[in-house]
Order: sequence, then C-alpha cells, then structure tokens
Amino acid sequence: MSDSFFTPVSGMDLPRFAGVPTFMRLPHLTLDDPRSSDVDVGIIGIPWDSGTTNRPGPRHGPRQLRDMSTMIRAQNGATNVRPFEALNCADLGDVGPNPADIQDSMDRITAFYADVKAKNITPLTAGGDHLSSLPVLRALAADSPVGMIHFDSHTDLFHSYFGGTMYTHGTPFRRAVEEGLLDPKRVVQIGIRGTAYDTEDLDFAESVGIRIIRIEELFERGIASVMAEARDIVGDQNTYLSYDIDFVDPTFAPGTGTPEVGGPNSFQALQVVRELAGVNIIGADLVEVSPPFDTSGGTAFLGVSIMFEMLCILAGNRQR
Amino acid sequence: MSDSFFTPVSGMDLPRFAGVPTFMRLPHLTLDDPRSSDVDVGIIGIPWDSGTTNRPGPRHGPRQLRDMSTMIRAQNGATNVRPFEALNCADLGDVGPNPADIQDSMDRITAFYADVKAKNITPLTAGGDHLSSLPVLRALAADSPVGMIHFDSHTDLFHSYFGGTMYTHGTPFRRAVEEGLLDPKRVVQIGIRGTAYDTEDLDFAESVGIRIIRIEELFERGIASVMAEARDIVGDQNTYLSYDIDFVDPTFAPGTGTPEVGGPNSFQALQVVRELAGVNIIGADLVEVSPPFDTSGGTAFLGVSIMFEMLCILAGNRQR
Amino acid sequence: MSDSFFTPVSGMDLPRFAGVPTFMRLPHLTLDDPRSSDVDVGIIGIPWDSGTTNRPGPRHGPRQLRDMSTMIRAQNGATNVRPFEALNCADLGDVGPNPADIQDSMDRITAFYADVKAKNITPLTAGGDHLSSLPVLRALAADSPVGMIHFDSHTDLFHSYFGGTMYTHGTPFRRAVEEGLLDPKRVVQIGIRGTAYDTEDLDFAESVGIRIIRIEELFERGIASVMAEARDIVGDQNTYLSYDIDFVDPTFAPGTGTPEVGGPNSFQALQVVRELAGVNIIGADLVEVSPPFDTSGGTAFLGVSIMFEMLCILAGNRQR
Amino acid sequence: MSDSFFTPVSGMDLPRFAGVPTFMRLPHLTLDDPRSSDVDVGIIGIPWDSGTTNRPGPRHGPRQLRDMSTMIRAQNGATNVRPFEALNCADLGDVGPNPADIQDSMDRITAFYADVKAKNITPLTAGGDHLSSLPVLRALAADSPVGMIHFDSHTDLFHSYFGGTMYTHGTPFRRAVEEGLLDPKRVVQIGIRGTAYDTEDLDFAESVGIRIIRIEELFERGIASVMAEARDIVGDQNTYLSYDIDFVDPTFAPGTGTPEVGGPNSFQALQVVRELAGVNIIGADLVEVSPPFDTSGGTAFLGVSIMFEMLCILAGNRQR
Amino acid sequence: MSDSFFTPVSGMDLPRFAGVPTFMRLPHLTLDDPRSSDVDVGIIGIPWDSGTTNRPGPRHGPRQLRDMSTMIRAQNGATNVRPFEALNCADLGDVGPNPADIQDSMDRITAFYADVKAKNITPLTAGGDHLSSLPVLRALAADSPVGMIHFDSHTDLFHSYFGGTMYTHGTPFRRAVEEGLLDPKRVVQIGIRGTAYDTEDLDFAESVGIRIIRIEELFERGIASVMAEARDIVGDQNTYLSYDIDFVDPTFAPGTGTPEVGGPNSFQALQVVRELAGVNIIGADLVEVSPPFDTSGGTAFLGVSIMFEMLCILAGNRQR
Amino acid sequence: MSDSFFTPVSGMDLPRFAGVPTFMRLPHLTLDDPRSSDVDVGIIGIPWDSGTTNRPGPRHGPRQLRDMSTMIRAQNGATNVRPFEALNCADLGDVGPNPADIQDSMDRITAFYADVKAKNITPLTAGGDHLSSLPVLRALAADSPVGMIHFDSHTDLFHSYFGGTMYTHGTPFRRAVEEGLLDPKRVVQIGIRGTAYDTEDLDFAESVGIRIIRIEELFERGIASVMAEARDIVGDQNTYLSYDIDFVDPTFAPGTGTPEVGGPNSFQALQVVRELAGVNIIGADLVEVSPPFDTSGGTAFLGVSIMFEMLCILAGNRQR
Repeated sequence: MSDSFFTPVSGMDLPRFAGVPTFMRLPHLTLDDPRSSDVDVGIIGIPWDSGTTNRPGPRHGPRQLRDMSTMIRAQNGATNVRPFEALNCADLGDVGPNPADIQDSMDRITAFYADVKAKNITPLTAGGDHLSSLPVLRALAADSPVGMIHFDSHTDLFHSYFGGTMYTHGTPFRRAVEEGLLDPKRVVQIGIRGTAYDTEDLDFAESVGIRIIRIEELFERGIASVMAEARDIVGDQNTYLSYDIDFVDPTFAPGTGTPEVGGPNSFQALQVVRELAGVNIIGADLVEVSPPFDTSGGTAFLGVSIMFEMLCILAGNRQR
Repeated sequence: MSDSFFTPVSGMDLPRFAGVPTFMRLPHLTLDDPRSSDVDVGIIGIPWDSGTTNRPGPRHGPRQLRDMSTMIRAQNGATNVRPFEALNCADLGDVGPNPADIQDSMDRITAFYADVKAKNITPLTAGGDHLSSLPVLRALAADSPVGMIHFDSHTDLFHSYFGGTMYTHGTPFRRAVEEGLLDPKRVVQIGIRGTAYDTEDLDFAESVGIRIIRIEELFERGIASVMAEARDIVGDQNTYLSYDIDFVDPTFAPGTGTPEVGGPNSFQALQVVRELAGVNIIGADLVEVSPPFDTSGGTAFLGVSIMFEMLCILAGNRQR
Repeated sequence: MSDSFFTPVSGMDLPRFAGVPTFMRLPHLTLDDPRSSDVDVGIIGIPWDSGTTNRPGPRHGPRQLRDMSTMIRAQNGATNVRPFEALNCADLGDVGPNPADIQDSMDRITAFYADVKAKNITPLTAGGDHLSSLPVLRALAADSPVGMIHFDSHTDLFHSYFGGTMYTHGTPFRRAVEEGLLDPKRVVQIGIRGTAYDTEDLDFAESVGIRIIRIEELFERGIASVMAEARDIVGDQNTYLSYDIDFVDPTFAPGTGTPEVGGPNSFQALQVVRELAGVNIIGADLVEVSPPFDTSGGTAFLGVSIMFEMLCILAGNRQR
Repeated sequence: MSDSFFTPVSGMDLPRFAGVPTFMRLPHLTLDDPRSSDVDVGIIGIPWDSGTTNRPGPRHGPRQLRDMSTMIRAQNGATNVRPFEALNCADLGDVGPNPADIQDSMDRITAFYADVKAKNITPLTAGGDHLSSLPVLRALAADSPVGMIHFDSHTDLFHSYFGGTMYTHGTPFRRAVEEGLLDPKRVVQIGIRGTAYDTEDLDFAESVGIRIIRIEELFERGIASVMAEARDIVGDQNTYLSYDIDFVDPTFAPGTGTPEVGGPNSFQALQVVRELAGVNIIGADLVEVSPPFDTSGGTAFLGVSIMFEMLCILAGNRQR
Repeated sequence: MSDSFFTPVSGMDLPRFAGVPTFMRLPHLTLDDPRSSDVDVGIIGIPWDSGTTNRPGPRHGPRQLRDMSTMIRAQNGATNVRPFEALNCADLGDVGPNPADIQDSMDRITAFYADVKAKNITPLTAGGDHLSSLPVLRALAADSPVGMIHFDSHTDLFHSYFGGTMYTHGTPFRRAVEEGLLDPKRVVQIGIRGTAYDTEDLDFAESVGIRIIRIEELFERGIASVMAEARDIVGDQNTYLSYDIDFVDPTFAPGTGTPEVGGPNSFQALQVVRELAGVNIIGADLVEVSPPFDTSGGTAFLGVSIMFEMLCILAGNRQR
Repeated sequence: MSDSFFTPVSGMDLPRFAGVPTFMRLPHLTLDDPRSSDVDVGIIGIPWDSGTTNRPGPRHGPRQLRDMSTMIRAQNGATNVRPFEALNCADLGDVGPNPADIQDSMDRITAFYADVKAKNITPLTAGGDHLSSLPVLRALAADSPVGMIHFDSHTDLFHSYFGGTMYTHGTPFRRAVEEGLLDPKRVVQIGIRGTAYDTEDLDFAESVGIRIIRIEELFERGIASVMAEARDIVGDQNTYLSYDIDFVDPTFAPGTGTPEVGGPNSFQALQVVRELAGVNIIGADLVEVSPPFDTSGGTAFLGVSIMFEMLCILAGNRQR
C-alpha cells in the first residue's frame, strides 16, 4: 500500500480542470527533496526537440501531457489495477535541456537519470523527441545492456543524417546498440510503416539481430500473437519500453512531427501495453508528442492514457 | 404517408448550406402551434450544461447539431428507410434552461416534455449534458418505470459529487432508479471504459440488476451479439434510448467534455442503433456534444447522423 | 528585497516552455504551508464559471493563464519595476469550486479569501467568471466597503436574470453594493459598450452614484485623462481592482464568453493598469478568460501580461 | 412603435446560445406569409460565392452570421437607438442560389429583391460574395440609378477576369455603372488599399467620376471628415450602402477571401456606419464573410455588429 | 531505371520542410519544356471547385497536397516499390481553371490532358472537385470508352441538380456514360454510403450495368474479396482510377465538402489501392480534398499517401 | 525595365490559389542557373529554427510565406511602385540547413550568401529564426561593417543563454558587433518592449552606442519622427534591414515564438518600411514567422506584405 502523501488529488475533491497540473495530479518533488527517497516510480518530462529532423514541437510535450493528465483517475477500468495504491508515484519535474546545444542537453539528461537510478526510482518519461531515449539509456543501461520493446512507425536505427550528423531522433537506437546500451537480440520494434529513404536501417537491424514487426504483420497476426512473441524476445531480463506516439495512426495522434498514415487505433494503442504484464521493465518513455500540431489536445490525452497503462504494468511488476 | 407540410427542404431546391438551420431542415413549430397536434416525432434541443463536472459546452450542442443536420438527406442509404415519409417530424425548438439554476432548469424541462407526451409526440432530444435525461424521464416515465438502452463510456450511476451534490451529469440514472423512473432490470449500459474513481457506481449497478457491457466485451463479442442481448434485456415494453456521444472514440467525437480513449469508430456508432429495430422506444436522446471542443463540427455531424438512425428506428416502429 | 525562496525560475536556467506551470514560475504553496506567512502577494485561481449566462469556459482560465504565464520574465520593460524582488509572491493554488452548486462555491471562495486576508496577503486572482468577484469582496470588504476600479465592456450591475436569478456574472456588483461591500460613490466602470437589453443597470448606477465611462468617452478623452479621474474617484482609501478581459477588443482577446466589438487594443489594455500607480489596491482580479474560445492562447497571454502589470503596481505600493 | 410580433426573443427569456438562430432572433417569414406586408426591414441571406476569384466560402456567410447574431441585444449602447421598436424587422430567409450557374443565380436574386421592393421592404443583405450586390441593384435601381457608399479594400470596378469573364466579385460595380444602376457621380469608395494588378479600375473610376478614398487618406483626415464628404457626395437621394468585410483589417476580420492588411480596426468599422445618420439608404449589404477562414466566428460577430449599426441608421431614417 | 533528372530531392540533402513544394519534390516542368517528352507519369493539379454543390474548397487542394507531399520518401515500405526509379515522374503544374466559368474550365482541362496524352504521359491528377474527372476523361477516352474503378461515398451518377443543371460534382459519371467515355459494364463503385435524396442514381447504375458495392458489403466481405471482383470487372483493358477522398471516413479525412460518416480507416484507404497491382490504369485522380475544412493538413497528407500508392501501382505496370 | 522572364504569373492568367507556390509567383532559379546572373533581387528562404530558445517553428516560415505570397499582386497601391518592372526578381530557393547542427547550418548559410553577393544580387530573406541574420551578415559585411535598421520587440543583444551558449536567436547582433559586422553607432532598434530578464542587453547597447527606441517612444513621437531619426542614424552608407515579425503586436502576428503584447498594428507595420525610401539597403530579412502557431496564415500574409514593401524600397533605390 502506498504512502498517502503520494495519493493524487481526486476529481471529487477538486474538479479535474482545477489546480496546478502535475502529472496525474501527483505531488511534485525535486530529486533533492528528502521524500524523493520514498518514490517508486518517478514521472519525468524531457521538454526537448533538438533532435527533430522534420516538424518540431516535442519540447512542448511534457507541458501538455501534464495538462491532459489531470483527466486520469485512480483505477484502470479494464484491468482494475490501482497504480497509485500499489506504488509511490511522483512528478519529478522536467530535466532542463539546453535548446541550442545537443551534447550539453544529452549530458544533462544522463546526469538526471543517473540520480534517478541511484535512488532506485523507475523512470516513466514524457518526451521530448526520440533522441531523448539515448541519454536515458546511457544512465539506465550504464552497467549492462538491456532489451527493448519499441512501438513506432520508424526504426530510428539510421546511421546519420544531413551528411554525417550522428545525433538526431532518427538515430538513437543505432547509437545505443553501438554503445552497448541495447542488446540487439533482445530488441523488438513494432508498427514500422510508411515510405522510406532506403533500407539502411533495416539492413543494420538484420545484421545485429533486431526483430522488426511491420504494421501489416501486426494487423494480420493480431496483437495477442505479436505481443507474445515480443515478450519472448525480451525474456525476463531488464527491458526498456519506448513508445513513439507516431506508432498510432495520425488521425488518432495528429500531434507529432513525422506521422505515417495507416497505423493502429486508440484501443489498439492501449492494448499493446496491456499485453506487457510481467515484463521486467526498468524504465519507459512516451515520446514525440508535439502539441503545436494538435491544438485539441487529443494526442496528449491519448499519450497520458498510454502512460497510465504503462504505470499499471509497473504497478503489477513492482509492488511495495 | 406523412403530411407534405412536414417534408424537409430538399438540397436540390435549396443548397444544404443555405436557409435557417432547423433540425434536418424540418418545419419549426412551437407546442402552441395548432399543427403540433399532427406531429409524430418532435426533435427538441436542451441547450444546457449546468450538470457538467468537467469541461463545459453542451449548452451549445443543439445549435451546432441543427447546423450540421442540414447535411442529412431524405433516405437511409443502408436501410432504405425514409423517415420523413413514414412520420410527421418537426423541430419543436429548444427548452429554455436557466443556466444559473439547476432545479429551475430541471422543472422547465420536465414541464416541456410533459406537454410533448400529452400530445402523443415521441421526443428525440439533442442535449445538453447527460443530466438532461433525468428531467426528461420524469415526464416520460411519470406513470411507470421504463427500460433503457444506454450507450456511454460512463455509467452516470454515481451517488453524488463534490461532497454531496446530487444532481450532476454523473448521477442522472442513479436518481432515475431511486425515483422509480427506470426499471433497473431492464437497463443495459454499453461501452463503459476509461479510468475510474472507484467502483461505487458498478456496485450500485450490480445491487439493482443493471447490466453493464464494457467496451472490451463489446469488441470481443461483436455488435450483433451484444445488441441481441440488449434487445432481450429491454424486451417489448417501453424503453428509453440514451446515447452519450462519448460512447464513441474521442478521435471520432472530440467535441465532448469527458472523453475516454479506446472507443467505437463511426461505423460502429451507427451500427449499434441500426440493431434496435423493433425495440419499443418511447423517447431518445443524443447528449454531451460540446462544440467548443470541436471547431470542425465533425462531432456534431456524427451526432446528427446517429440521430437520423434513431429517427429511422422510430419510423420503422411507429408509422402513421 | 524579497526572500530568494520566492524568486521565479529563470528562463536562462530552465527554458520557459519547461517545468510544472505555476503562475509566473513562482513557488506553489498552500495556505497551510508555514512559508505562506511570508507571502506578500498570493496569486490564486478561481476555476469556476457557474455564473455564466452566455458562452462558458472560464473554469479553464486559471490553467491556461498559468501555462502562458511562464512567458513572463522578471522586469517590467516599460516601468523597470522588478516585482518579485520588491515582494514575496507565490502561487497559492486554486480555490476548489463546486461546479454544480453556486452557493456552495461562493462560500468556499469567501472562506479561502478570508484566510488569505487573515494572513495579510494581497490576493491577485485569476478567474473564473465575473461572479467570482462577489465572494472575494465578501472576504476582503467584510469590515468596511471598498472602492473599485472596474474595466469591462459590461456593468455587471443587473438586478437578476432569467426571471429572478440573483447570482450570475451579470449581477455581482449590484449584490456587492446591496451588501455594503462596495461604496458606490467610489466605484468607476470604464470601457462599457455593446448592445444592451435595456438601461436598468445604468439607472441603478446613476441612482447610487457609480461613475460609468463608456468606450467612446475613453477614446475621445484619452487614457491619461480618464485614469486621472478614476484615481480621483477612488481616492486613497481601500480599492479593489477588477478587470474583465472583455474590456479589451475581442480580436485581441477572443477567449471570452460575452465579447463586444470596438474595444481597446493590447497596448491600451496595459496602459490603463500602468496609470494606477499609487492607488491603494487591496486586491485585484482578471476574469472571464475562456480558453475554449481561444485555442491559440493569445487571450491568456494578454491576460497574464495584464496581471504582471497589476503585480508591478502592487510592488510599487507595498514594498517589504 | 413596432408590432410586438416582430420583437426579437430576449436573452433574459431564452439564453442567447439557445433557439433556432434567425437573424437577430427575429421572426422568420417567407415573402408569401401574409405578415410580410407589415415588414419594414427584411434581413435576407444570399448564400452564394460563385463570383469569387480567390478563396471561396461566402456561401456559408448567412448561416454563421445568423448564428452569431443571437449575441445582439435590443439597444445600441452608443446611440441609444432601439431599432426593433422603431421598425418591424424580420428574417426573410435566404435567396436560394444555383451554385453551379451564375446567370441563373443572378436572376433568382433579382426576382427575390423585386418582390421585396414591391412590398416596400428595405432589404438588409447578408452575403455572399460581392457579385451579390449586382443582382440586388438590378431590382432596387430598376427605375433610376442610385448613389452608393461603398466600404471595401477593393474597388470591384474591373472590366473582366480570366480572359473576358464579365461577372465576378471584382466587377459588380463596373457592370452596375454600365447598366445604369449606379450614378457614378454619387458613388464613393472608402478604404481602398493593397497591392494591385494595374490601374484599369482606377482609370475607369476617374473617367466616370467615382470618388475613391484610399485608406491612407481615411487615416490621415479622420473618419468624421471623410464621412462628411461621403454624405455630401450621395446627397439626399436614394443611396445604396455596400460594406465588404474586407474593408476591415484582416486581423479583425480574417474570415474573408481576399484580405488586404493595414485596414481599420473594429471600433472604426462601426464608426463609419454611425456617421451615416440621415443618409437616404434604400438598401444595404454586408458581404464577403467567409466562415471557413474564421473558425472562431469573430468575423461573423463583427459582421452582425456592423449590420446592427446599419439597422439603427435605417431606424433613424424610417420610423413607422 | 529512371533518368536522374527526375529524382526527387532527398530529405537527407534538404530537410523535408524546406524548398519550393512541388509534388513529391519532383522537378516542375511545363508541357512545352523539352524534357517533358521524357516523362512517364505527370502529376497535375486541377485547382477547381466550381462543380461543388455543397461546401467549397477543393480549388485549394493541389496547393496543400503539394505541401504535404514533401513528407513522402522514395520507397514504399509495404511493397518495396521505388516508383521514382522505375519511372520518370514530374510535376507538370496546375491546369489554370476559370473559377467563374464552368464550360471554359472544362475546355481548358480537356485541352491540357489531350496534350498530356499526346506525349504518352500517364496523368496522376490532384483535384479539384469530382467534376474534374469528366474533362479529363474527355481527353483520355476520346478514342474509346474505358473502364473505371471508383472509390467514393457517392455515385456521382445523378442526372442534374437545382432544377436542371447538368454539370456539377454529382453528375460527372452520368455524363461520361452518356458521352461514351465510360463503358458502364466495366465500372465499379466502392464505398457508397450515407443518406440519399432518392434512388435515381442507383436506378441509372442498374439500368446501364454499373456495379455498386456499398460500404456494408465492403466491410462484410473484406477488401481482398471486393477488390478481386473489381479487378474482374475492369479486366485487362484500359481503366481509369478515380478516388474521392470522401471514400475515407471523415474523421480520417475531414477536409472534404460532402462527408459521410462510417467509412474506411486510413490503413484500408491504402489497402484498396495496393490491391490494384496489374490493372491497366491509364490515368488516375484523387479528388475533393478541401483544405479550408482541414487546417491540420491531415487530409492532404492521407491524400498524397494514397497518390504515392497509385504511383507505385503505375510503376509496377509501366516500367521504362 | 525588367526582363519579361522575371515577370510574376498574373492572377488574371492563373488564379492566385493555383500553381506551384514560389515567392510572389516569381521564377524559381538556383544559383547555378545561368539566368541567375541577371537577377537583381533574390528572395531566399532560410527554413531554420535551431537558435530558438522558446517556442519553435520558423523552420516552416519560408514554406508558408511562399504559399501566402501568391496573394501579392504587381503594384504597390500606396506608393505606385511596380517592383517587378523595376528589377529582375527571382525566388532563389531555400538554403538547406542542418537542423541538428548549428555551426554547420551557419556555415552553409554564409556560403550561400557569399555566392549571392558575388553575383551582385541583393538578398531579401524569409527566415528562419533571428539567428539567421548572423551568418547572412558574415557574408554581406565580410569586407566592412554595415549599419542596421532593426524592427523587433527584443534587442537580440544578449551575451549568452543557458549557462554560456553563444549562438541563439537572442544573441545574433551581440556577435555581429563583436565580429565587426555591424557598426554599432549606425544601428537603431525600434519597437523594443515586454518583460525582461535583466538589462544586460541594454547596458551593452549603451556601451557601444546602439540606439534603442522603445515602443512607448515610437507611439508617443509617431512613426514619421522616429523613422527620420532612424534614417539619420544609418546615413547613406551600406545598411542592413532586419525585421522580426514579433515587432508587430501578436494579435496581428500570432505566428511567432516569443510574442510581446502591446505592439504596432498592421498598418504601422507597413508604414515603418515605407519610411525607408532612399536608405542604402544592401540586404533585408523578415524573420521569426512560425506557422505552427498561426494556422490561419494571417501572420505569413502580413509577413509577405511587409516583404513586398521592402522590395518596393529596393526597387526605388536600385533600378536597372
């Protein structure tokens, strides 16, 4: 049973549109607050999009995700999990990026997550563009490579962009494999689709053993079958969960920079996460929510709904 | 065959973007107009949202539903029903609410619908938030309790909000059961989903015999199976039909105050109504359309498309 | 010089789009936090719009005003005032309203502001609809009536609405005069315009000695002349400042429920506040910002820019 | 004193967002209704934009103007005129255009306005693109040419478009002069600005004696001076008033097809009409409101505010 | 292998948001450019909507489709086709319509496509409203009637509108059958749905042998089965492909003038085209994209994604 | 008289919404096209926003500015200048930035503009964020420092951001002075306003002799007086013109990243440029247009209207 300090504000006490918007109406703590040592899961924003090669905006993601997250209540209607009772959850604030310096920003992020890890807090990240995952992995997988379940319409496995630029949102997992942060044989990428420059990313994936499940295969085999395979691939060792909102069809999630039509609907977007029960998740992220391309906030609301499902998975796996 | 006075204006005579927008381009009558005694189905707006606990806006619903309804033509393409030939339909205008007094507003609504009932007009209501259904039921079920088929992502069966407030859009059907307006054993709620405060509503439903079909069950069993069960539950006695637009996935219906992701698509939104042929419907409503959250009007267009399906069901059941 | 605890986060340290959005990036305190006794000016949200007779939405005002307020920096470029150095400022959170009970909500607000007053904190309020000002005045003017400088396109002096409803956003100052909270001879209303139902409000104003300055007079005489008169009217006694965002032309402030065209521009919107230096302001509000009618956030940004000017006036008057 | 049948619905009786939206909440009559013989001013929509050479949309103008017009109350706050008491006003509905046949549409419009004129009703038109004015003038000026006060950023005096097309929204007044509907010496065009193809329109104006007052002259001399000259130009004979919403700066009126930056603000937009007291106006129009380019409805609200000022001028000139 | 002159600009060289937006970043040629004789497939815009009977806007379609098309890359991820290597593709610019003269516009379009055909270029058209298809067919089927696969929610087979108007976007294929441009026995229409005026179009279809597959049949049988039948119907002779974006559900494609709810999703929107491999397509169009009703650009992005699938079909059939 | 090759497409020949959108419908040339040697003024896009410290988006500026620029015609209505007859103008395309590498991007820009300068082409730039001006000045002022007239609400004279980052859109002119590109005594900044971090920028300006004219001074003295002083400051030597769209009030130009309320209106936005006749302008830019924050396109339309005024100034100064 969690500590009552960590109970979110109820909509019955304070209407859901009211109050300072922290993630899921949880208490906002900084890492130097003494209560941070009691936190099991820390929700963290990375308001950063310097790795974006196409349309920008994910720097605004954490703000809008917090805003929409006050619509989330205490209990998962589908699975009956009550994550805030199972775990001490808190909003740990945003990592402050340097919008005009990519390397400095990555260093700041890695340093922040190293602290999080040192406190034995499982981080649930609200991005930020997908390059965010790299500095996070540098902290979480500093000791040994981890597996990864990755929902996306792109592999993000490219070598470089624009004539040799190594750090963009299209390259994080290439770097992570090269740096020994990911064990490619324990990596599965689900939902890949859309037009492609070439097959350089796919060739790399094949060469190192990353399993790619395209959208056509997902729709044909069904979610249960594909997710069973995904669970097999990562096994019971440490696994990172990375969810690019552009995995979802852009009609359901227009607020993103590099949409690809023909993706899953919102029910499927939740289902794939529900199928992760039992996976040994040591950190998760939801990235590429770009509010300027979604003034209705629907993308962010779907995003936090997905984050709540992630939290319920963590609650099932790590109860106090 | 209906009276030609009640024939909607054709888009071939006057383009569909033209003219004063009444519901489905029908004549606008007030209840004291002598022709109102010839009306079979009256479409009525309840521009009211004082029961809203979250995001407001349904007070603007009837206006935008009328606007988009001029896109509706004479014949149901799927079922070939021509409702305006089968029945005399009219736009009976809006019930004038008191935006700053909930009890006064409920009294005004009940009085209006008592007149409608007295004239033997079947009301098809455009809400308004879901509290609207309660004063309508007070008029329609004044003599004896009715059954209800209820599409929604929420049960609206809570006891109270904000420390004891009994009348909100989250409580109408709790009140309706308590007041003997609904026969709970003849009530079925379909599409329930999303996060929950607690299970107080579900416990009440179980205790009185209301059947709840969650979205997972709807998707798993399919619409035909679930709707067959729904028809069985209400049987052939008087039944009210209440359709909260948030039953539909918020990507298809963003213009609503309390969306829950992971719902039916627009085809399914129509299908569930088409499955109601033969049910003894004595009144129906489409509620919670909130135009300020849907500037495109897509939610209202879906809403009136659903209302047209309702009208076709009524036309099948009650021909002159 | 203020306490460094109360220094807002700088955009140089954390980019302005980052972080949990409190008002002007100030610390968020509740009234039971011991540090609240050091607060000079408390910024408070009233997320409430039950008094709205027309288009709703101000319940969302405080949330969006907080969001846009992170664009505000430390120094007033026009007057060189640095309010956060002059005063200890804090975000005191929102008063929790009861969206479905007007009287209960007013009682909650009055109780909250009585606490604020008891702690000798000057409240700067982000509404909420204009009815919010009444329960605030009940706390602040509990002992003796105050004067008021009121910017608005409406007088809000009507007796009642909808056949006798006494509490709406069109009646707060009628009630405040009746309840002895306002000294009508020390009240001036500036910017009145638009179409009118009748002259019942103007007749009342004349009968009790409230000075009304229509927009035509404001534009003809100029802001300096009109504001000099306003300062004379309120003199050096306790004065409340109430600013309805619909004072400003709706092109500059579309996000409001009852716009009237032909108002001041954004420069003039700031100028009128800058002319208040030296007025003995014991509380101020900025009301009627309705985010659903302004998806760009421009209205809220103008709103917080006005609130910053108010804060600078308070800083000039009350330095630690 | 007007007939109570023609009194608009009050917002005190029915909130302004409620009810079927007729123009200014007036009764909706067709010309074959016997009560139409009692009408002094008829407000008429022309939902037509086939003459548009640039961005379309004015076909939707009357619908949105009606919608926003329910925000208009009974009395002009600036001039104290109460037009609905001075005159019998009614919504005469829309002229049904043929969207795919320009000549047919013009014939329909002229026929409708000939009926209006025959009933001695002064028409106040909500367009529609500016070509609408030509068929209206064909009816109103059938017997003898009229003068015109014309607010616009364009002269609409071109000979033809696209290699010889004579009927577009850039040519109506060239045709009207050629057809003897306008007396060019009694025509004044105010607000002209923006980039130009060439000076063919200006050369024509000069050759026939039309007075053109560019925006620079309007701003330099001021509205009072310019409008005094305008009143002199038209004198006391029959005069048509034509107001293209693109006269106003596009920030205040974005919902239009051919905007030109650098125009009057909303206060000035009303002022120019108020200066028309005493002019012998035999018909007026407000054209080129294009709702698809203004989802907020602000353009339409400004448009109906202008129409209300026109109505007040008519009420001053023609009291029952 | 195509000529390198015809290779689109890569997003790796120039980011996809940069540069003058031609269709799919191809070279822009006019028909009098000598290089046009090397073109295999020419993408052509028809910025025209004079045939629209309902909401306008497709005149803006080509502009926004070009804009969004710069998000398309070189390779089809699902089928691995690289169309720009298989064929010489170019942007041939827009046919200049006369917005105020339907007959003149149709003549201009037919003349342009006659030139295209004379140069042995296969045209891929971005409309424009659906009337555009008629003048295109007059050029392409000048010698002998062609078959047609037609995706739409409407048949566009009506005789006339508004009392006898023969040329609107609801009549092109009636005219095309009458003019001997289409062989009705080789025409299949897929996706038909929504409310209907009457059955005049269906009666005509039946009388001449056009096969209509309603949306209910498409969903029940599945895409593979239906498309197999479609391929049988057109056989291996010359076939035109016409795709109205309103075939797709309006939530996925809101930017269109006459939406009908309950249609295919974006994955299915692509699937139906992928099933056309091997069909002898001599020209294709994607029509009725109306940007003013879709400010997000999502409809146009789906539209160009569909056009890319069409191009891949052409590339499979006609390799250099 | 200019070469007819460089004549923009007329809206009379091709409607303004049609065609591939180049800047002002001019021919699109690359610098290696032989005709580039005949160009007098080249309009160039810099689709880049890596220097943005706040809200992103100017990378999309050139695309939307091109789109809206097709609304510009041949002649300046206010000054009668016909710039395309006076000068050979062309769209020189976009400089390809590297979105993930600031230094690389600056080098690419400087190299491009060095070529432009070598060809004796005067560049008119469409940004891009304000950091763009620095690499442009490195090319144009390579030989000797230039003066500058700078319209903005910010000085962009800060030393560094985020703990030492030297290259952001808040620092370009500090760097330009340090690098000897600008002669500070010949620099004037007009329109400065809004809240400030501190006075470090103003202190620097004072220390080097840059003249700052705040918005209050501009409004008080009037545009004619201020611009006369500006002309005196720069004298008749080489002068760069830099116009940040946030100089204009954000209601008129919402599409920008760091708005400050209380600025000039759209008429004044043009006026200040018209006052530059005779100034020896060797290059000009219009920066910080951020389309994601202005879906209506109004900001871009104002932006290109300003660019057209710039072009007319250049045409007055440099006629062939």
